[in-house]
Order: sequence, then structure tokens, then C-alpha cells
Amino acid sequence: MAIQGNLIIGGQPIMGHGGSVHAYAAATGEALMPAFGGATLEDVDLACKLAAQAFDPYRRLSDERRAQFLDAIAWEIASLGTALTERAHIETALPMLRLEGERMRTVNQLRLFATVVRDGRWHGAVIDTAQPERTPIPRPDLRMQYIGLGPVAVFGASNFPLAFSVAGGDTASALAAGCPVVAKAHPAHLGTSELVAQAIAKAARDTGMPPGVFSMVLGEGTSVGEALVKHPSIQAVGFTGSRQVGLALQRLAQARPTPIPVYAEMSSINPVVILPAALEARGESIARDYVDSVTLGAGQFCTNPGIVLALAGATLDAFCEIAADATTAKMPATMLTPGIHSAFSSGVQKLSGLPGVTAFARGQEAAGPYDAAAVLIRTDAEDFLAEPSLEDEVFGPSSIIVACRDTNELEAVLNRISGQLTATVQLDAKDHAYARELLPLLERKAGRILFNGFPTGIEVAHAMVHGGPYPATTDGRTTSVGSAAISRFLRPVSYQDAPDALLPFALRAGNPNGIWRLVDGELSRE
Amino acid sequence: MAIQGNLIIGGQPIMGHGGSVHAYAAATGEALMPAFGGATLEDVDLACKLAAQAFDPYRRLSDERRAQFLDAIAWEIASLGTALTERAHIETALPMLRLEGERMRTVNQLRLFATVVRDGRWHGAVIDTAQPERTPIPRPDLRMQYIGLGPVAVFGASNFPLAFSVAGGDTASALAAGCPVVAKAHPAHLGTSELVAQAIAKAARDTGMPPGVFSMVLGEGTSVGEALVKHPSIQAVGFTGSRQVGLALQRLAQARPTPIPVYAEMSSINPVVILPAALEARGESIARDYVDSVTLGAGQFCTNPGIVLALAGATLDAFCEIAADATTAKMPATMLTPGIHSAFSSGVQKLSGLPGVTAFARGQEAAGPYDAAAVLIRTDAEDFLAEPSLEDEVFGPSSIIVACRDTNELEAVLNRISGQLTATVQLDAKDHAYARELLPLLERKAGRILFNGFPTGIEVAHAMVHGGPYPATTDGRTTSVGSAAISRFLRPVSYQDAPDALLPFALRAGNPNGIWRLVDGELSRE
Repeated sequence: MAIQGNLIIGGQPIMGHGGSVHAYAAATGEALMPAFGGATLEDVDLACKLAAQAFDPYRRLSDERRAQFLDAIAWEIASLGTALTERAHIETALPMLRLEGERMRTVNQLRLFATVVRDGRWHGAVIDTAQPERTPIPRPDLRMQYIGLGPVAVFGASNFPLAFSVAGGDTASALAAGCPVVAKAHPAHLGTSELVAQAIAKAARDTGMPPGVFSMVLGEGTSVGEALVKHPSIQAVGFTGSRQVGLALQRLAQARPTPIPVYAEMSSINPVVILPAALEARGESIARDYVDSVTLGAGQFCTNPGIVLALAGATLDAFCEIAADATTAKMPATMLTPGIHSAFSSGVQKLSGLPGVTAFARGQEAAGPYDAAAVLIRTDAEDFLAEPSLEDEVFGPSSIIVACRDTNELEAVLNRISGQLTATVQLDAKDHAYARELLPLLERKAGRILFNGFPTGIEVAHAMVHGGPYPATTDGRTTSVGSAAISRFLRPVSYQDAPDALLPFALRAGNPNGIWRLVDGELSRE
Repeated sequence: MAIQGNLIIGGQPIMGHGGSVHAYAAATGEALMPAFGGATLEDVDLACKLAAQAFDPYRRLSDERRAQFLDAIAWEIASLGTALTERAHIETALPMLRLEGERMRTVNQLRLFATVVRDGRWHGAVIDTAQPERTPIPRPDLRMQYIGLGPVAVFGASNFPLAFSVAGGDTASALAAGCPVVAKAHPAHLGTSELVAQAIAKAARDTGMPPGVFSMVLGEGTSVGEALVKHPSIQAVGFTGSRQVGLALQRLAQARPTPIPVYAEMSSINPVVILPAALEARGESIARDYVDSVTLGAGQFCTNPGIVLALAGATLDAFCEIAADATTAKMPATMLTPGIHSAFSSGVQKLSGLPGVTAFARGQEAAGPYDAAAVLIRTDAEDFLAEPSLEDEVFGPSSIIVACRDTNELEAVLNRISGQLTATVQLDAKDHAYARELLPLLERKAGRILFNGFPTGIEVAHAMVHGGPYPATTDGRTTSVGSAAISRFLRPVSYQDAPDALLPFALRAGNPNGIWRLVDGELSRE
């Protein structure tokens, strides 16, 4: 497989005629060859129509066939070797080691969804058997299962060119749910996207999937993405990126003649609360871990710890000094795109200029044109509460420390902050009583609550929630990472008094696939 | 308990000062005494603020306490005796027997949700245990459970004054999910609503619930409902009613600074496909059952079979003749409100006047001013496909029979019809092969597929789906009837490396409540 500059429409490579689009080297801004052909609106239309055609045949394949497809994608991506990570490194400036790890995560994520499909709990099979003798009216036989929503449009993230892009979590969970996918390649890693799309297309061919099960389009500007979200065949949208774009997609989706769900994972400042006993006992190590978490991957994580809350005083001052020293030692890192770099610079500048706000530590000066130096900022709760824009996410290696006079002020800040992906509590045993009081508030604010850790690093697991109340996401009822992400693309269908031969396998008498089902209120594999 | 004309705010009866509002006798249009005091915007604000205050204490009660509250509501409603059904009969003109049945259903529905809460599967508890030795990085301990979204606004339905009103399915499932409820009484049964609200308030007091767990407001016009949906404390909306109002609430909810989910169950024409062998073998009995279903409860069901599809020919003509005879014999029935009656009359008149459409059978003439006579209408698929408004729901005892030249035309009509609550197939063994071809299309269109039955009559069960793709509802990923309705008001929260003592009971070591949990990928009650 090699980078050709193609779209993949219904599994076939096609050179788009919607204008020439270039990939760029993140470190230098230099255009890479070959150029890509952007999708025309006809290309988008064809991809979506093929996806709609593929929907019924694809979703009605056996669980085993669908799992084999996911496993085959994992295999093909693993088989791309260093060609994939080297290209991703050029396009994103993310370190090779990180990209190798991310590829492993992407492959494991696909395999996890294959096991989820094989396990069969995703069907959500529920059976209430008939009671023909019941009075005054007999009870019918009712059987429910979940089916896919339909073709899903996937918008990959700039900061995870593999794990949250063309074959990332949204694609894996949509395909697992029985939904064809039309992915839009992120302009910040077009070559990486094409390689991965080729791998998916090969896996689809090799495992005999309907051709429309996967397409990838690309294009400059917003027209290709908009056409995708507005296309009547598309039934759901997965997106990871900025709040501005996520909300724009949500508005588009709501304005359709038939509105569709948008799962946009947008922005979060991920509050970290350091409770007094922990600050006293472990302030130094917390400070170092905090700076490591802020600067990891040039701070380009949705779960970057953007705000720290602690009680004001000498212990917090000492914490800030250690954090400042650790920050000063940090090397600069190249950001994903010139746009992200300039948004980071202006975001930091804007925050630093606000009343009562001090940028008190900076990392090593930038070497390359798109390098970012880490920045730590400090303010008081009173100033924070007076200035709503202090809550705005600044994507990159910066973080604000907010000194609170007392726990009332600390809670006022937490109450003021909007919905978050994560909230973290640093605590020691002596802090437990207050932590217990604080927990209900944190549960209302965030999708994941961490204890004595830092939110960067998202385990792909059954119990992971990478989601949270608006505006962290457009839909806090779900997660975009972990096996529960499959539920985003499913809806229930009930069959009343259906002849057994017409029932889907998951609901048939005798449980032919041996899956977990709720039968007359009891879980059973019988 | 007696009807006083009060609101219930945080469990307390309060006379609203937002203008005098009257309940009416459905049969005569006569105003009933006493008058009700409509809610002021301050009343609405107070109800919502009390609900927000009650949220944390209520949701953190044990499952057993919450179940006891639901059981107590059921008991109080049962204890209202005939005072409740007699008032409901006057306000809605629904027959006493039907209202007694509906009360039983309401009581059983509350008890079902009590068992759902006790069962504990609603927590969705998932545990991925730590792997401290894993390389390159250790796996954290991750534990997920679902918690309530927050206070829920419930808008009851006119056509189910008990089972889908103040203490109906939305309220029962929201309270089960740990969400306080602010209900808006439906203007078509204010007295019934007050009696039920008093019962809930008494149950809340007797079981020691926080006062804000339940409130009921009322008011003429749209301002009270709008204030409810826009209130920042409200986190979700349950609604059953017209498409116009449902979509208006959805727009309001989306335009909030923090958008919230609206579960609006709106409208459906519930296609019934009669396949050839069934029509041939059982046309007569199907025709009689069909007319019974169309006219049941004056046709005032969301699942009224509003459209029948079958292949044109002599067998269908004979079917129509039998259906016409059955219709002619049907007595008129008083509709719920003058507004519903006039919408039915004008809807039927509009449909009958469309090209190629014939109203070929009418029930007995109306006696009272708000009585409706049943109407059957016939058209050809070609005419149906040419006239989009033939798809509009006419709420009441009417239905359209669409004669199709062949199965292609039949499928064209089904494809044209928008999302539905139900789809029904009448079939015999010889029809199975074609039914199998048709099923994928029906699955994409409807939330419930019935075989050899009629869609009126909705079993409150674990496997029930009363929902369906837009515009049958605003959110086809859920159901508003049956135990799965609880999931509408829940969202997941993940706890990473939490000290056991700070974990919610559902996730603690040793599984203190003995509930089903997914532990390292395996379901277990250990």
C-alpha cells in the first residue's frame, strides 16, 4: 500500500476531482507529495448511498462475520509496519514511540470491539414470554434487540491520527454496531488517513463485506463535512475536535428534515482538586506529575489537566514553586498544526493578560516555528469567578492553578465550571470525609472521576467513560472510548408474537448463539 | 384527598396566582368547579430549584428506599378509589372500565419500576480491575455506573390521564432513575392530575423523600411549559402528545445555553401490511379486528392502525366490504377534548377531499357535540405516493387502506412513510418468505414489529419498545414504555482508582448488594 492521494469510495480508490489538497509536515509546514484529490459533492453522495445500500446486508451478517472484519482491519493496520507511523510522525510531529503505542491501542481497540460483537451482549436481547391465559387480556410474546442506526459519518481527531481517526474508536464502535462508516480524513494527517483507509478496504474485501461498508472522503474547507452530515443516508455522526466545529455539526444535524444524533467530544479543562492532606504530604510529587501530565504530547489531549484547585497558603505556594521548576526544565514540542500552534499562543496570551492572572512559569523556548513552550498560570478563585473566559480551553501545554480561600470558594469554582470529561481528586486518608461531600458535585460535572492520578491516558476498557455533560460533549449519556461506545449507534426494536423462523438469531427459541439474554426478568445464557 | 385547584410545589399544595384555569367535562364542554390557580413563573422556578436541591440526596438513597417510594406511590394511587376514575371519566369521557384498567396499569408500572430499581441492573455496574504489572503502563482500576441526569420535566398525554400522565411512565422511570420530577398537568384532566399529584406527595412524605423530589405545575397557554423546559435546573424532558408541541419543546431544549434531551413521543400512523395468503385465508377476521383496533378508545391511541397496505384485487375489495360493514355498526364515541374533536373532523375532511381518495365507510352518526364517528378511507398506492399529506396522522377513529399493484409499490409506500412507533404484518405460513424480505425495511422504520395482531394495546414489559425513528419520536434510541425507559434518564460515570470507601455501593468490593456486574468482561453476581 502506498499513498496515492485517493479517496476510498465503497472500498475503491478514486482520485477526487474536488480540487487539489495537500498534506503538510507538522515541523516545517512544508507541503508533502503527492497531492490529494478532494471529494466532489457527487463523491460524498455516492459514498453515502453505497453505505445505505450496505446497511441491511452488513447488519444482518452473523456476529462472527462482523467480528472477523474488525479483526482483519486490526491485522491490516498492524501490517502497515513503519510506513504508517513514519508518515504519521511527519504529518503530526508526534514522537515515533507515542505513535507506535497509539497504533497498538488502535489495533487492540478494534480487537476489543470484535470480542464485544462475539460476546453478544450488544444485542441487548430481552424476552418476555407469552402468557396466553392471563386475564383480562393475554400477554403477547415480546422480544427486543438492538440494531444499528444506519450509516455513520466519522470525523477523526487531529491529536490521535490513529486511535481517534479513520479506524479509531468511532469507526470501530460503529462497525461493531452494524453501521457502515463514511469517514472524513482529517486535513492534518491525510496520508496517514489514506493508508488506514486502504487497510480497512482490504479487510472488507478479504472478509467479503458489502462494498459500501466503508468509504473515506476528504476536502478543504467545510463543504465536504457539511454534505456528509446533511446527507439523508447518514444516521449518526461521531466527532472529536473543537467546540466550535462540534457545535456547528450539531446544529447542521438538528436542522435536517430528519435530525440525527451527533456524538461530538469537544472540549474540557479537566479540573484537578488537590485536597489539603494530600497537598501537605505529597505536594512535591503531585507537582511533578502534574507538570508531566500538562506537557505530555505537547498538552494536546482532551483530558489535559487545564485547571488545578487547592486551598491558598504556604503549601500551595511551595507546590507552585516546584511546578514552576519542573515546567522550566520542559523542552518545547512541535504542535500538530500551525493553526493549533497559533491558537495556543494567542490563548495563553489572552489568559495571561486578564486581571489577577499571572503566568508564573514557562518551559524552554521554542526552537521550530510551530513549537510550544509550556506555561503555568496562577489566579485566585475570586478572579476566576469574575472572569468567565478563564474557563475556556486552551488546547496545548498550559494550565491554571486557582487558589481558593476555603472549601466554599473551591465548590463555587467547581459549580461554575461547565460539563467536563474528567475531574480528578488528589487525596490522602485524612481527606476522605471532605472528598465524600465533594463527590456528588463531581459526578454531576464529569464523565470520569480519578483519584490520585492524572486524566491524560485513557484506558480502552469496558468501564471507561470518555464523555461527560455538555459542553464536554454534545451527549453526556454516552462514552466515545471503551466498549460502551457501541451503544451510541444502536436503537431497540421489539418483535411481538413473531414466528420463530422470522426472528433474528439473538431472539430465537433455544438461544442458538448462547448469548446472555434477559428472559422474563432473569439474566440467562440458556 | 379532594380536588382543591392547587399546584404541588416541593410536596406542598399551593394555590397558584398565575390566573384561574378550569377543568372541563369532555362530554359537554362544561367548566368544572373548583377553578385551578395557574402557576406563576416564580412557582415554576421554585419547583425546579427544589428539584435541583433534592437531586443529590434523592439519587444517593439506597435502591431499597427508592423502590419503597415507587411502591408507596402505587399504593396511594390504588387507594384513591373510584374518586379518581370518576373524575377522570368526567374529564376525558373515557369509559370507566378502561379507566379502571388504566389505573391498574399505572399501579403495576410503578411497581415494575420498583422491581427494576431493586434488581440493580439499572446501575449498569462495570468493573475492570487494575493490572499494576502490565507493561508498558499499568492498567488502572476502572469502575463505571449510571446515575440520574437530574430533574426531569414531564408533560403528560391527554389520552392516558393515568398511565401516561402525572404518575405515568415518564414519571415512574425518571423517579426510578433517581431524578426528581416536575410534572405539568395536562389541561384536559386537571382534577385527575391534582388527585394523582397529592398521592405522590403523600407517598414522598411517608417514605421520607426530600421535598423537592416531586412537584406539579399547571397553566393555560404555553408559558408554564416553556419556563419548565428552559429552566437551568431541568436536565431532561419527557413528553407524549402532538408532533407540533413535541418539536416545539425540542427546539426550546436545543436553544438553551445547555441543551438537554427531549424524549417526545409524537405521532405515528402505524402501517399494517396484510400479506396475500393471510388476506386470502383470514380476510374477514382481520377486517373485523382491524375495525375494532381503529375504533378502540375513539381511536385516540398513538398506536392506532392508521394505514393498511395490501395488494389490490378482489380479495382486498372483499376485505374492504367487511371492514365497511363493521365500521357502519360502530357507535360514536366522545373524544377527549373539543380541540381533538375538531382536529379529527377537519383532518378526515381534508383527507377525503384529496384526489383518488374515497371515504367508503362511516360509523354511526355522532350524538353529543364532541362525538366522533369512525371513518375508513381508501386510495391507491399511486395516489398515496403523489400526495405527502396522506401520511399525516389524523388522531381519532379513522384509517386509510392503500391498494398496491404489486410488492414493489407496497415497498415504495413503506419506504416513503417516515419513522413509526409500530409496523404490523398479517401473514400466514405461505407469506413467510416475502415477510423475511420485508423485515429489514420494517426494522428501519419502526420501534415495534407485530405479527398477526394489532398495535393498539402496549404491554408494559422488559421487551417493550414504544418508540421509533423520527418523527415518531424525537429520539429513536429509546422507549417510553417498559422497563428500558429508565435508561432515558441515566448517564454513565467512571471512577478511576477510587478508594473503596468512596465508591458507590454498586461498585464496591464484595458486591454488597449482590447485583449483576460486568467484571473484567464477565457478567457476575459475586
